[in-house]
Amino acid sequence: MAKFQTIFVTGGAGYIGSHCVVELLEAGYEVIACDNFANSVNGEKGTAPSLERVEKITGKKVTFYQCDLLDYERLDKIFSQHKIDCVIHFAAMKAVGESMEVPLLYYKNNVVGTINLLEVMKSHECYQLVFSSSCTVYGNPEVLPITEDSPIGNVTNVYGRTKYLIEEMLMDLSRSDEKWNICSLRYFNPVGAHPSGLIGEDPTKPYSNLMPYIAQVALGNKPSVVVFGNDYNTPDGTGVRDYIHVMDLASGHVAALAKVEKDKLRYRVYNLGLGKGLSVLELIDLFVKTTNTKVPFVFVGRRVGDVDTLVCECQLAIKELNWHPKYDSVRMCEDFWRWQTMNPLGYRTESGAVKSKDSTVVSNGTLTESSITNGDH
Amino acid sequence: MAKFQTIFVTGGAGYIGSHCVVELLEAGYEVIACDNFANSVNGEKGTAPSLERVEKITGKKVTFYQCDLLDYERLDKIFSQHKIDCVIHFAAMKAVGESMEVPLLYYKNNVVGTINLLEVMKSHECYQLVFSSSCTVYGNPEVLPITEDSPIGNVTNVYGRTKYLIEEMLMDLSRSDEKWNICSLRYFNPVGAHPSGLIGEDPTKPYSNLMPYIAQVALGNKPSVVVFGNDYNTPDGTGVRDYIHVMDLASGHVAALAKVEKDKLRYRVYNLGLGKGLSVLELIDLFVKTTNTKVPFVFVGRRVGDVDTLVCECQLAIKELNWHPKYDSVRMCEDFWRWQTMNPLGYRTESGAVKSKDSTVVSNGTLTESSITNGDH
Repeated sequence: MAKFQTIFVTGGAGYIGSHCVVELLEAGYEVIACDNFANSVNGEKGTAPSLERVEKITGKKVTFYQCDLLDYERLDKIFSQHKIDCVIHFAAMKAVGESMEVPLLYYKNNVVGTINLLEVMKSHECYQLVFSSSCTVYGNPEVLPITEDSPIGNVTNVYGRTKYLIEEMLMDLSRSDEKWNICSLRYFNPVGAHPSGLIGEDPTKPYSNLMPYIAQVALGNKPSVVVFGNDYNTPDGTGVRDYIHVMDLASGHVAALAKVEKDKLRYRVYNLGLGKGLSVLELIDLFVKTTNTKVPFVFVGRRVGDVDTLVCECQLAIKELNWHPKYDSVRMCEDFWRWQTMNPLGYRTESGAVKSKDSTVVSNGTLTESSITNGDH
Repeated sequence: MAKFQTIFVTGGAGYIGSHCVVELLEAGYEVIACDNFANSVNGEKGTAPSLERVEKITGKKVTFYQCDLLDYERLDKIFSQHKIDCVIHFAAMKAVGESMEVPLLYYKNNVVGTINLLEVMKSHECYQLVFSSSCTVYGNPEVLPITEDSPIGNVTNVYGRTKYLIEEMLMDLSRSDEKWNICSLRYFNPVGAHPSGLIGEDPTKPYSNLMPYIAQVALGNKPSVVVFGNDYNTPDGTGVRDYIHVMDLASGHVAALAKVEKDKLRYRVYNLGLGKGLSVLELIDLFVKTTNTKVPFVFVGRRVGDVDTLVCECQLAIKELNWHPKYDSVRMCEDFWRWQTMNPLGYRTESGAVKSKDSTVVSNGTLTESSITNGDH
C-alpha cells in the first residue's frame, strides 16, 4: 500500500477534529478538512477560527471547506479536487440530551451523512477510514473495565445509537468488499485542550459537556454546575467516566491512521481511554484544586440515557497501535483552564458578536442557563 | 381522532403492497400508492401492472406515482397534493443474500428512504404509520415461539439489520414526540397469492423467495430447487419458517391501520405469522401434493445469515388487532400455483419483453439460473 499523503478530516473544525489536525500536520500529513459548523463556531466567509489557530500552532496550512455531509455533490467535488488517501470521520451531532428530543435530526445527520461519505469515498476509490465511535455503544456494561469484545448494542440514547448503527454498517461494508480498510475508535470522555491554550472545546449549544461547564462556573459566568443524579451505583453516587486528554485522543487517531496505512485491517475497533474512572464530583474537586477556583454544584435528578460507570481497558490500542497516552487528569484540568482563561469567549471575537446561529452566547459573553451535563460527550 | 380516508402506500406495486391495496380498497379507503419498481415490474409510462390488476379485482381506482423515497422533493409534492391520513410503509430492498453483497445500497434505500419519508410526513403533520418490519429482527432466537417481547438486535443479515435500525428509529421518534402513532408489523414468511390469480409474487431479481422458485421448477423453467443447508438443527435439517398467506398478511395490515385509527399506540409491535413451522422440504412436499407437479431439489451449503427456525406466537395480533387469519398452507400452495399458471411470465407481456432493468427474465421466458433460496423473504 502506498504511503498516505493527504487526509480528509470531516468535522475538522470541531473540538476533537481540530486537535487531531494539529497532530496530523505535525506528523507530516497534508490535511483537507470540512465542517458544517453544527458544533463549532464559524468565522467570516466560511472560515474556521479553530483551524486558523491550528495553522498558528503548527506553522502549516489546512485546506478547509465549509461542507455538510448531507450535500453529496459538494462532497463529491472535494474528492474530485484532491487525491485523498484516507478519511478521518469526526462529523456528527453529539449531544446526548438533544438526541433524545430530535432523534430524526440525529439519524439524518449522523447516519445519512456517513452513508453519503462512504458512497463518495467508494466512487473515488478511497477505501481507508478511521471512524469516531463512542463508548456509548457499550450501553450500561455488565462487566468493567470494558474491552473491545464487550457486547455492544443495548445503547441507552439516540446519539449512541447512531454511532452503533454506523459501526454495524461499517462492519457489513468491510465484510462485503475486502477493499475497505476501516478502524473505529470508541472514545471515552475527551477533556483538556492543546497546551498552547490556542484551541479547545467551545460549545455552541446549550447541551454541554462537563468540563466546559465546570470552567464556565469557575469563571463566574454561571452560578453552579447542575449534576444529574447522585444515586448512581458508584462510590459517591455520581456518574463515573474515563476521561482522556484530547491530545492523547488526537495522537490515538494518528496512531490508528498509521495502522490503516501499514496493515490491512478490514474492520478493527479500539477503545481510546485511560482505564481510570473519575466521578463527576472527583473531577470537580480536581479542577478546583488544580486551578485554585471555586465551583459550586447542585444535584438534580438523573438524565434519561445516562449510565453508572464507563471505564475501559485500553491495552489493545497501546499494544497494537503503538499508542502512548501522556497526559494525566491534572493536565486535563490545567490545559483546559489555560484555554478557557486565554479565551473566555472561546473562538468568538471580543466584541461578543454571535457568529454561529446555534450559539448560546449573548452579547455580554454570558452563557444561557440551560447548559447542563453529566460528563458524557 | 378523525376517521382515516386516504392511505399512502409506499412500495404499493410490490408483492405484499399490491395485496394490501386490494384489502384497503375493499375496506373503503382511498389509496395513493408509490413504487420505484426496485422489486416490481413496471409498465409503460411509469404505470404499475400489478396495480392495474388490483383495479380489475376491486373495480376501484388507485392513484399511483412512480417515486423513489430517496427523492425528497417528489415525495413532498405527493403529500402536498393529497391529504394523507396514514402511511403504510412497505418500500424496501428485501433480498437477504443481495444485502450482504451490497450493504451500502441497502442502508441507503431502506434507512435513508425511511428517514426521508418520516421527515416529509412530519412536515405535513401526518404522524400515523404502519411499518413493514420482519421476523429477521429477532436474529437466531433462543426461545420458540417468538413473542413480541423476545429480544431483537442480534440480526444475522444486512436486510434484517436495516429493518431493526428503522424500528429503533421509530421507537426513538415515538418517545420524543407524542404526536407519533406507529405500528410495526414483524412478518414471518409471506407466500400465496390473491385467490383470483390476477396478482402474486413476481420476482424481478435473481435473489428469490422459496415459493416462486418452487413454482418455476414445477413449471419446468428451472431444473431443480437449490436448497441451502440440510444440516440445520431442525427435524429434517432444512430451515423451518412460519409461512403466512399474503391475503392474511394484507388483512393484518388493515387491522393494524384500524388500530392506529382508533387508539393512540405511540409505538406498538405485532408479529404476523400463523405460529406453525414448515421446513423447506415440507413446503416442497406440500406444494407437489397440492398442485400435482414435480419439484426436484438439490442441497448445497448453508447461506450466510440464515437461521434454523423462525416460528412466532401470533396471539397478540389476533387479540389486540382483532385479526382473523383464514388461509392454511394448502391454500398458500393452491393460490400461488393458480397465479403462476395463469401468469407464467408474471406481469410481463406475452411477447416476453423485459420491462424492468433488474429483471432476470430473458426473451424466451426462462429465468436465469442464479435464483437460489432458503425460504426467507
